[in-house]
Amino acid sequence: MSAGKRIVILGGGFAGVYTARALEKRLQPDEASITLVNRENYFVYQPMLPEVISGSIGITDIVSPIRLLCPRTHLVMREVEEIDLGRRVVTVSPGFHPRRLELPYDHLVIALGGITNFYGMPGMFEHALPFRTLVDALTLRNRVISCMEEADVERDAGLRRRLLTFVVGGGGFSGVEVIAELNDFVRAVARRYRNIPAGEIRCVLVHSGERILPEMDPALAEFAQRLLAKRGVELRLKDRLVAATSEKAILKTGGDIPAKTIVSTVPSAVSPVLRQLECAKEKDRLLVNGHLEVQGQEGVVWALGDCASIKTAAGNVAPPTAQHATREAETAAHNMAAVIRGGSKTVFAFEGLGKLGALGHNSAVAEVFGFKISGLLAWFLWRSIYLMKMPGLNRKVRIAADWFIALLFPPDLVQLSLRAEGGILEQHFEPGEVVFHQGDVGDCVYVIRKGACDVLRMNGEQEHLLATLGPGEYFGEMAVLSGHGRNATVRAQTAMDVLLISKADFDQLKSNVPAFGDVFSKLAASRAQR
Amino acid sequence: MSAGKRIVILGGGFAGVYTARALEKRLQPDEASITLVNRENYFVYQPMLPEVISGSIGITDIVSPIRLLCPRTHLVMREVEEIDLGRRVVTVSPGFHPRRLELPYDHLVIALGGITNFYGMPGMFEHALPFRTLVDALTLRNRVISCMEEADVERDAGLRRRLLTFVVGGGGFSGVEVIAELNDFVRAVARRYRNIPAGEIRCVLVHSGERILPEMDPALAEFAQRLLAKRGVELRLKDRLVAATSEKAILKTGGDIPAKTIVSTVPSAVSPVLRQLECAKEKDRLLVNGHLEVQGQEGVVWALGDCASIKTAAGNVAPPTAQHATREAETAAHNMAAVIRGGSKTVFAFEGLGKLGALGHNSAVAEVFGFKISGLLAWFLWRSIYLMKMPGLNRKVRIAADWFIALLFPPDLVQLSLRAEGGILEQHFEPGEVVFHQGDVGDCVYVIRKGACDVLRMNGEQEHLLATLGPGEYFGEMAVLSGHGRNATVRAQTAMDVLLISKADFDQLKSNVPAFGDVFSKLAASRAQR
Repeated sequence: MSAGKRIVILGGGFAGVYTARALEKRLQPDEASITLVNRENYFVYQPMLPEVISGSIGITDIVSPIRLLCPRTHLVMREVEEIDLGRRVVTVSPGFHPRRLELPYDHLVIALGGITNFYGMPGMFEHALPFRTLVDALTLRNRVISCMEEADVERDAGLRRRLLTFVVGGGGFSGVEVIAELNDFVRAVARRYRNIPAGEIRCVLVHSGERILPEMDPALAEFAQRLLAKRGVELRLKDRLVAATSEKAILKTGGDIPAKTIVSTVPSAVSPVLRQLECAKEKDRLLVNGHLEVQGQEGVVWALGDCASIKTAAGNVAPPTAQHATREAETAAHNMAAVIRGGSKTVFAFEGLGKLGALGHNSAVAEVFGFKISGLLAWFLWRSIYLMKMPGLNRKVRIAADWFIALLFPPDLVQLSLRAEGGILEQHFEPGEVVFHQGDVGDCVYVIRKGACDVLRMNGEQEHLLATLGPGEYFGEMAVLSGHGRNATVRAQTAMDVLLISKADFDQLKSNVPAFGDVFSKLAASRAQR
Repeated sequence: MSAGKRIVILGGGFAGVYTARALEKRLQPDEASITLVNRENYFVYQPMLPEVISGSIGITDIVSPIRLLCPRTHLVMREVEEIDLGRRVVTVSPGFHPRRLELPYDHLVIALGGITNFYGMPGMFEHALPFRTLVDALTLRNRVISCMEEADVERDAGLRRRLLTFVVGGGGFSGVEVIAELNDFVRAVARRYRNIPAGEIRCVLVHSGERILPEMDPALAEFAQRLLAKRGVELRLKDRLVAATSEKAILKTGGDIPAKTIVSTVPSAVSPVLRQLECAKEKDRLLVNGHLEVQGQEGVVWALGDCASIKTAAGNVAPPTAQHATREAETAAHNMAAVIRGGSKTVFAFEGLGKLGALGHNSAVAEVFGFKISGLLAWFLWRSIYLMKMPGLNRKVRIAADWFIALLFPPDLVQLSLRAEGGILEQHFEPGEVVFHQGDVGDCVYVIRKGACDVLRMNGEQEHLLATLGPGEYFGEMAVLSGHGRNATVRAQTAMDVLLISKADFDQLKSNVPAFGDVFSKLAASRAQR
């Protein structure tokens, strides 16, 4: 550590990483030490994230190691747990060893971005996939491939159709790029499956406005709508996702879409660490002045990127885009250097160079320098600009090679799961939905958190109601204990939230925590008499 | 499905996939339907697996979608649960929906490969990483990067050294290739870390024999040993791993190596499904005749690859290599076609073309057509042969591009974790090892399965024994319940196996399974009085 000022940057997105890079250029090692805290050791190049779905860019090519991008910055690969503005200390989560680490600072840059928040939307947390990080993108890719693999062997036509329906919520840039890539990918790889009829594939984009891409010129948005429709994407406008189960997406206007895969690109919220922080805010975002300083913390704390509420010198709201974040980083770094060395601060005045939206296979829409461009030319522009802006020659070369190879060969369908599902999961059921059928394999135990369900014995078409269960009650333990199939069907009576304990975890707990095993063994014995 | 014979192939490695390909060439769609069961939807090109560690080949380029390699084969992406030779039915695990699937067959090919079996080696299951699948390779890469990231911020010199020590067990082809890649990678990326002195990095290869690479000519093995030593790899010959904890590898000769990362490429065993199977075996492997038919199942069941015990026409044991597996596949496919169409069977007579072993950065050893080659030329040969043998033009182009780019740029250190750790984990402690220290963060609850531990209150240097706990007892719940740090130190008194329940899982269980919560709340209350 040098004897200079201690600068701590929270967040490794565009705002955080570009601040570190700008500071490395402006300040000498003896003037300041720079520390950056980020959950991952890499920076994600967000504009290309949807391309991970189709695998047209190598998975690790879309991200860059932060250590390479900011060689002089000290990277701490941890979660931010708490910011103490009074003591000027940031606490980060424990790593290998369960010890907390405290990072004192002289200057702090808060660039923690946003999170996807499904608060107040039943079942969305459990069943909808966000699309924000590299892990989200990979998880979606794996889910899509799982659905295709399952659909290929599934004989139940209803389930097969749900497996082949993909719903995306949100018609902004992110949602449109995701549905475009997803639709292209699914339809391209479907040819490799022997039992998937192209007619059964549905890709649906749900958007609350009258047209998609509200940020763009109406003519370009209409071009995008026509193109997506031509490629087989269904548009549901003036509607939005309000709830989800493992079997369907539920819409505000009352309808639903039977589907196993639901992606939501909205709504965005700030991270919980910032919600606890006591300082001036606007709609949860940190309120900053023209120098990007947090109110009451001038000269000490800066906030930028998606977690800050920023107005330009001309009074316009700065949108949450990469081009704005990188310019905010320049302004913050300049002003921090001015505080440390003495000098005058500048005011953030960047108004944006243009707007670009990719539409999948060789098409895009663009508004640049007042021109409106659509189709192949816009797509070419999109690729050129984002490739040029990608930091590091290494990544530029790799991505150019990826794109070239992707032109020659069809997309790939390798599924890359890093580990088996484990831990305790949650699920949400709507009234009338079946949790499991009599005769199914018993692969987990359920605990009801909210709502109620009916336990039914089936005799051919006849149902016999065995019991109705409510919050705090368990079911599904008998098949897990016995190793035989489910001896009854369980159906949600009301909207119901459950915990799932996998068979593996259940067996571990049962044999090692006697009290736990006792509860279930007694319950199973009493139920077996029915 | 066609009206022909139903052929079911179990396993998607070299033996299984190449059998499917050979059958697709030999038989018409109306003569036979081909079904292949594999856990993943991709085929792993094993010889290049160690290159995943350094990331010199793109993660998904080393694997090929089975649907592309065998377009006419019906792929079922499930686990094999049971083989019923009497009923001629294979049962596979449930997928999305908890229903078992049964696959009846007229002809069966068993090519399930091997698994890594740590039976009888305490702590190895919990703390040693196998190296067999793509997931294993990625897990190792991620572990190595985590260790580097942690070492960079760790102030405890002992822990930092354990984080920077990497132990590989087994000096055959696989172990040598892993330690070579690992050593190259760690030493190359260490330069990116500001607080990792090159002198603290240790890479150790433990091998039971007098020299590594027992399959090869002594002169070549010695060349390999000298080269590895020159690059900084420590060799521990005439010794082997017998146990492991989260802090060290324990050796047969009595010593130990303090290390956080332990990889074991030995020993190999057959999958549990085959252990249950009643038929002729040799050392657990399925015994086959010269036509590769399982004894007593002639004309119906074939076994090949690593799970079969195969002798060539000349009476030599067929080793578990890719070149043998692909030839076995040809023989099995020929003989199956002969049974279906009528014709004469052939006897497996392939004796191997040569042996190749990679030694990392631009070096290898090779025995081909009686020539012994080492160094750069052997490395060039290695790359040429394996690139040529890689199935599919697509992959050949991608890997050639990867290799070319890897020559231009240093290795990458992006860590790609797909999900947070979850579920119930196991750990093993040796006598005297500390489970956690007073003051540490409480991130999980422990249940003792075997052994005993001491609970100690520390007053500066003074220890005060609060309790000794044994099998079935819990500890660590107080800090998790209170949210404060650990209020005591826990140290293993004997060798001890524990279950770990993560804080997230524990909180879920506690608030939703009252009996579970009660047990721990009462326990915590009684202990708080101490």
